[in-house]
Amino acid sequence: MKNKIKIINDPVYGLINIPKGILIDLIDHPYFQRLRRIKQTGLADYVYHGAVHTRFQHAIGSMHLMSLAIDTLKNKGHEISTEEEEAVKIAILLHDIGHGPFSHALENYFAADLSHEDLSLLFMQELNIQFNGKLDFAIKIFKNEYHKKFLHQLISGQLDMDRLDYLRRDSFFTGVSEGIIGVDRIIQMIDIFDDNLVVEAKGIYSIEKFLIARRLMYWQVYFHKTVLVSETILKKTIEKIKKLINNQNISINNKHLEFLLKAKKPFDKNELLFHYSNIDDNDIISLLKEFQNTDNEIIKYLTNSLINRNLPKIIISKTTFNENLIKEISTKIIEIYKIEQDDLEYYFQEGEISNQIYNEKDENINILYDNKIKDITEVSDIFNLSTLDYMVKKYYICIPKKIFNQIKIDRWNL
Amino acid sequence: MKNKIKIINDPVYGLINIPKGILIDLIDHPYFQRLRRIKQTGLADYVYHGAVHTRFQHAIGSMHLMSLAIDTLKNKGHEISTEEEEAVKIAILLHDIGHGPFSHALENYFAADLSHEDLSLLFMQELNIQFNGKLDFAIKIFKNEYHKKFLHQLISGQLDMDRLDYLRRDSFFTGVSEGIIGVDRIIQMIDIFDDNLVVEAKGIYSIEKFLIARRLMYWQVYFHKTVLVSETILKKTIEKIKKLINNQNISINNKHLEFLLKAKKPFDKNELLFHYSNIDDNDIISLLKEFQNTDNEIIKYLTNSLINRNLPKIIISKTTFNENLIKEISTKIIEIYKIEQDDLEYYFQEGEISNQIYNEKDENINILYDNKIKDITEVSDIFNLSTLDYMVKKYYICIPKKIFNQIKIDRWNL
Amino acid sequence: MKNKIKIINDPVYGLINIPKGILIDLIDHPYFQRLRRIKQTGLADYVYHGAVHTRFQHAIGSMHLMSLAIDTLKNKGHEISTEEEEAVKIAILLHDIGHGPFSHALENYFAADLSHEDLSLLFMQELNIQFNGKLDFAIKIFKNEYHKKFLHQLISGQLDMDRLDYLRRDSFFTGVSEGIIGVDRIIQMIDIFDDNLVVEAKGIYSIEKFLIARRLMYWQVYFHKTVLVSETILKKTIEKIKKLINNQNISINNKHLEFLLKAKKPFDKNELLFHYSNIDDNDIISLLKEFQNTDNEIIKYLTNSLINRNLPKIIISKTTFNENLIKEISTKIIEIYKIEQDDLEYYFQEGEISNQIYNEKDENINILYDNKIKDITEVSDIFNLSTLDYMVKKYYICIPKKIFNQIKIDRWNL
Amino acid sequence: MKNKIKIINDPVYGLINIPKGILIDLIDHPYFQRLRRIKQTGLADYVYHGAVHTRFQHAIGSMHLMSLAIDTLKNKGHEISTEEEEAVKIAILLHDIGHGPFSHALENYFAADLSHEDLSLLFMQELNIQFNGKLDFAIKIFKNEYHKKFLHQLISGQLDMDRLDYLRRDSFFTGVSEGIIGVDRIIQMIDIFDDNLVVEAKGIYSIEKFLIARRLMYWQVYFHKTVLVSETILKKTIEKIKKLINNQNISINNKHLEFLLKAKKPFDKNELLFHYSNIDDNDIISLLKEFQNTDNEIIKYLTNSLINRNLPKIIISKTTFNENLIKEISTKIIEIYKIEQDDLEYYFQEGEISNQIYNEKDENINILYDNKIKDITEVSDIFNLSTLDYMVKKYYICIPKKIFNQIKIDRWNL
Repeated sequence: MKNKIKIINDPVYGLINIPKGILIDLIDHPYFQRLRRIKQTGLADYVYHGAVHTRFQHAIGSMHLMSLAIDTLKNKGHEISTEEEEAVKIAILLHDIGHGPFSHALENYFAADLSHEDLSLLFMQELNIQFNGKLDFAIKIFKNEYHKKFLHQLISGQLDMDRLDYLRRDSFFTGVSEGIIGVDRIIQMIDIFDDNLVVEAKGIYSIEKFLIARRLMYWQVYFHKTVLVSETILKKTIEKIKKLINNQNISINNKHLEFLLKAKKPFDKNELLFHYSNIDDNDIISLLKEFQNTDNEIIKYLTNSLINRNLPKIIISKTTFNENLIKEISTKIIEIYKIEQDDLEYYFQEGEISNQIYNEKDENINILYDNKIKDITEVSDIFNLSTLDYMVKKYYICIPKKIFNQIKIDRWNL
Repeated sequence: MKNKIKIINDPVYGLINIPKGILIDLIDHPYFQRLRRIKQTGLADYVYHGAVHTRFQHAIGSMHLMSLAIDTLKNKGHEISTEEEEAVKIAILLHDIGHGPFSHALENYFAADLSHEDLSLLFMQELNIQFNGKLDFAIKIFKNEYHKKFLHQLISGQLDMDRLDYLRRDSFFTGVSEGIIGVDRIIQMIDIFDDNLVVEAKGIYSIEKFLIARRLMYWQVYFHKTVLVSETILKKTIEKIKKLINNQNISINNKHLEFLLKAKKPFDKNELLFHYSNIDDNDIISLLKEFQNTDNEIIKYLTNSLINRNLPKIIISKTTFNENLIKEISTKIIEIYKIEQDDLEYYFQEGEISNQIYNEKDENINILYDNKIKDITEVSDIFNLSTLDYMVKKYYICIPKKIFNQIKIDRWNL
Repeated sequence: MKNKIKIINDPVYGLINIPKGILIDLIDHPYFQRLRRIKQTGLADYVYHGAVHTRFQHAIGSMHLMSLAIDTLKNKGHEISTEEEEAVKIAILLHDIGHGPFSHALENYFAADLSHEDLSLLFMQELNIQFNGKLDFAIKIFKNEYHKKFLHQLISGQLDMDRLDYLRRDSFFTGVSEGIIGVDRIIQMIDIFDDNLVVEAKGIYSIEKFLIARRLMYWQVYFHKTVLVSETILKKTIEKIKKLINNQNISINNKHLEFLLKAKKPFDKNELLFHYSNIDDNDIISLLKEFQNTDNEIIKYLTNSLINRNLPKIIISKTTFNENLIKEISTKIIEIYKIEQDDLEYYFQEGEISNQIYNEKDENINILYDNKIKDITEVSDIFNLSTLDYMVKKYYICIPKKIFNQIKIDRWNL
Repeated sequence: MKNKIKIINDPVYGLINIPKGILIDLIDHPYFQRLRRIKQTGLADYVYHGAVHTRFQHAIGSMHLMSLAIDTLKNKGHEISTEEEEAVKIAILLHDIGHGPFSHALENYFAADLSHEDLSLLFMQELNIQFNGKLDFAIKIFKNEYHKKFLHQLISGQLDMDRLDYLRRDSFFTGVSEGIIGVDRIIQMIDIFDDNLVVEAKGIYSIEKFLIARRLMYWQVYFHKTVLVSETILKKTIEKIKKLINNQNISINNKHLEFLLKAKKPFDKNELLFHYSNIDDNDIISLLKEFQNTDNEIIKYLTNSLINRNLPKIIISKTTFNENLIKEISTKIIEIYKIEQDDLEYYFQEGEISNQIYNEKDENINILYDNKIKDITEVSDIFNLSTLDYMVKKYYICIPKKIFNQIKIDRWNL
């Protein structure tokens, strides 16, 4: 018998079935294959060595969860047409196709100020041309222009398949078992009310757990201090190289990258997409390695720091740092590294991070409670004091190791 | 070579190593073997069919975690003597040996008003005689009479090995994956400060996760409505049989059980222990089955309800139930079942449940923060509004199915 | 929306969906609920303390795998009607309903010489009456009287859903991770050829692995020496009690059990089924405990040995035991225990075990190879020398501990 | 308290403890950090998208297993000194440090004809200089020059920690659950006899399982047909580029790679190591991308095939291919691609693969049976017919897709 299904082995969910047809064709397209070369969590593998999983897996995993979600909704008696089902699967499959090297860590660095969502849309539109309009419906859902709002919410919302997959997958590959969420149960609990995605009342404990696990993953993985310092240094390195390329008209081996680091608005969409579709994590790593032996001391310091994972010291604090401490460090760095004030930013970085578990104003999680819709903050016992909206802010500074050892940091009572 | 270790295969932790000697001898004792016949989570398997795991496993699992905890503390430079180590392992191994049939569900029903902790102590004292005083030290720690308080806290406290094991094990066997806690990581984060058990600052996210997971397990498993109604009916059944035995001098097949259902204070310790050490879940199931065909209609109704898992309807509410509803149900039951007012309690039960995630006054979770001790509620971002102390109360009623169908419950707007 | 599906949480497979209707009604029937009180693997928990899982779980798990198998076959283009699907699910759900206390360990002990399959059929026929003939089709498939042979093969054959579930489940609960088989992949590889169940060629490695894992489970779990000795003693105990009841007209507390231990052919089907449907593991445990303090020294020895897990020594050998050794042991036992020759069998047991990985003659595993059917032994590289048919036989004796210590067993060079 | 241990989170084993000191210092060295950029399983992620794990993880995982093995052996009463323990851990940590881009797929391509073991030794010797001779002992064990042979066998042998880790890790990341081996149990079963590594008799089932699982991983993963064709094309691409660089004196952007592709014996060790320590997977990917738009049609075809995963068709057969088929394909390719006979190898590849489960002559698995050493093939029931030594050979050809569609392959009855 002819099998109409392609089976993919996923370490997280086991065997994934994908119907042959446009979904497989899209996966086979070079644009999508490129996602094999973009790691899902930037430099998180500098702390969690298992976290080398890619956007490729994540896109396929999200699509798999979408299948489960659609099945659940159909089982609960909602009508979803074959066209709607295919379209929403295409949309989730391509939702991250606009991601570039190191995902969020370098977002907005290469293609003027375009976000990855803008770029995903550009990719989809180009694919739509190549696939003769077969993505029309998917794009409509992606842009939230379709009347069944829940289809868009399954792609992008507080409880979308994107989030469910990345939390589940990132906790799997990092080994942070506390981040594990009950993906199956959450999906079993979703329903539709008034064209909106809702969660059955008995699912609230799973939702609470999901929100707490998400927050844990933020602080323990995405904002882990070593990840923060790595990504800070990565940004500074690219900024410095960008400056050199733009101001001093220096040239690099990689022509796609050079184009993208020079790109400014207004740009030609097709040209931009051409170059952008040709870069991935490799290009950045090779760029860093190319500059490891440069004469420019700053770039040498930065690139070696990254390639050899010999990172600056990072200090995190719940309050802002004392002005005097900042001054003391700055002075020492300028003196020891013999640099100009202008280049201080490459040796000494200040920043802040904030995480809000849940933002009601944005998109809320609707609970179906006695046939009425309530927000999770209303019905949860634990979140009844609106802890969820509470924004936590933290501050950090990154200092070269040899400077750190000269400053008696304990004096500052951080 | 002679292997000095006995290896036990545990589905949760893999291979568990136990040094040959007193620990193995205690495990081989009939008192401990009896725990093989007591399920860990009472009637929770009526909802989660996998949850048939026993107190036997739990005791061994807790002892395994104790080994890990002791190793961690030693690695952090704390001195713990071989005698202390053995004693604390004995104490955790036996901490639940006083549990009787269906664990908590029937606690206090068999041995006057003794709690399972009182009974555990009785067992330990008797074993201490049989083992020629080798349990002296363990009993001292169990009773919290030893100066290194952290040893007792590892057995009984907010973060003891008992809790870590039961949460991990119960989530494994129920299949409620959201209850999974990062046992390894939590144990890696413990430390000692001023003779007290503390948690390193970077462990707070794991602790938060642990508290939330514990709460989830309460509502999703231990207080699941079907578990509640099962255990309510079980209690009522035993109460009714107890009454019959005591008041009408009726006799049952099981002499140990008969003795224990008649036992009153003051009692002879040895006699009580003899009979108590001979009963387990089986005796209760056999008792229920013995009464399935009795002439007593009440007991017949109750026992068949349990054995065939044909349970009454349970309704849970966040508020107390309307007096008129209670009256209406009572009247209907008395009329239909043709019973006396006095026997109403066997067909109609009211109750309440409450869960507090964390109770600071009791025993707190100390976080070691900048070399100072702070309570988790002080340093946690999420629990800073003292949500943790918040007590949630719920109310429930259990009604025979055929009555339930006659009452238009929707009218009552629960 | 009304949910037409009941969700059951299974620790092995996660959430299991069961359509409301006859399947749920059968599960709710007291006959099926009784399976909650029968452990899947007899006394295997005396070695693997986690292995306390029940026939109830196994039946539901097998039905779940049947759903997956049916879906796979439909996806491959085979037509399977709604009626066929429901019937085959009923049949697998009830395939083990005839199991009695301790499953295989005491098979044939209670109901004349009926096997558990005979009893399953009796139960199904009775249920068919109660459900007004709705089980007709299922019974036809169960008895292999339906022309689509693959439906029966999915219930009973070398690769049936029963085996897949019990291997997967037993390895999960014992913690013997080497027994894990790729259930998902095996099911994905099945196909139908000429109305027979076959496996796609690319599935042969998984099949080889399955056969090896099955063999490993036999030697490591089902035939583990402590399991063997436990079950041997259990059998001897019941035999002895049976003899007492039948010959000396002694009476026991449990009337159902008494009836069944006395039952002889010809018997009244309905009466037999009535009593049989009322016994489970509990009745045996209670019987053993009832006899723990009897005056009969033999039964006292046997029951205490079992209840306290204080078991005789077992010796396993690849060859038969030397006649002189047997004589020496026999003499010692008779002397020390002061027993008659006739009662020797209760203190000293001999037996043999054999395991064949695969028996081609019985029912073979068909591989679909280049559109032709070949047996696994033909196409497998590893099994090409017909190792699979190779029957391994081992011999064992069980001896009371105190006798064992008096015999210098090393002399015998076993 | 000062923690003397660094904890690393591993998705496979959970938390791994590493004592601070030379092991951590070696991990922090740029040579070792480079392993973060070399995937463990070459191009296996083209089939199993999860398999993007690195040599870095594998080295640390192997070291972790070494800790467990050493603990087991000590528990069994064998003396192993602190120095021996540290040395064997260093040796296993560095055993694969000589791997280059894409591990085995491109072994011997870059540094004259050095194998990865030769290169590992070069790295260790250089590190030994940098670490002032602290690796002397480790190198002695690595080279099998130390009298306690079992220490070397733990690094390299039929049952070494390298194999245990890669099988366990590769099955984890590919999601091929059948490849899972009981690492814990195998390690628990090892012992020492006469200075050699042996396995306790009761461990034979686990060993059998391990050998079968290894074989399954070979055919299902390492020799998966898509992996074979990918790696074949990768090799051909590098060969072609190498030829161009050497013969036509063409230059590439990457100077390290250029040096290594030109390197011939005799070479300067230090120079070679300098360049080799600077290349990894990234350099190859960037090289391929650099050549994607070249004028050279052959390289264009090959690089695009790889980067876009648009691979040739591969056919696998148990017998050699018919000469006429080979001729037909060759002619068609030359005609259609308009190429010289000499360049045929880039469009059409023939090859063979072979796998032997176990090779007794090489290094055998010794089983400790009744205090005598026997080979696994002697004591295993399943392998008693020496199936293990059986060598399986298969043949394959790779053909461009458009050629494949023109050849009626069915005619050839493969």
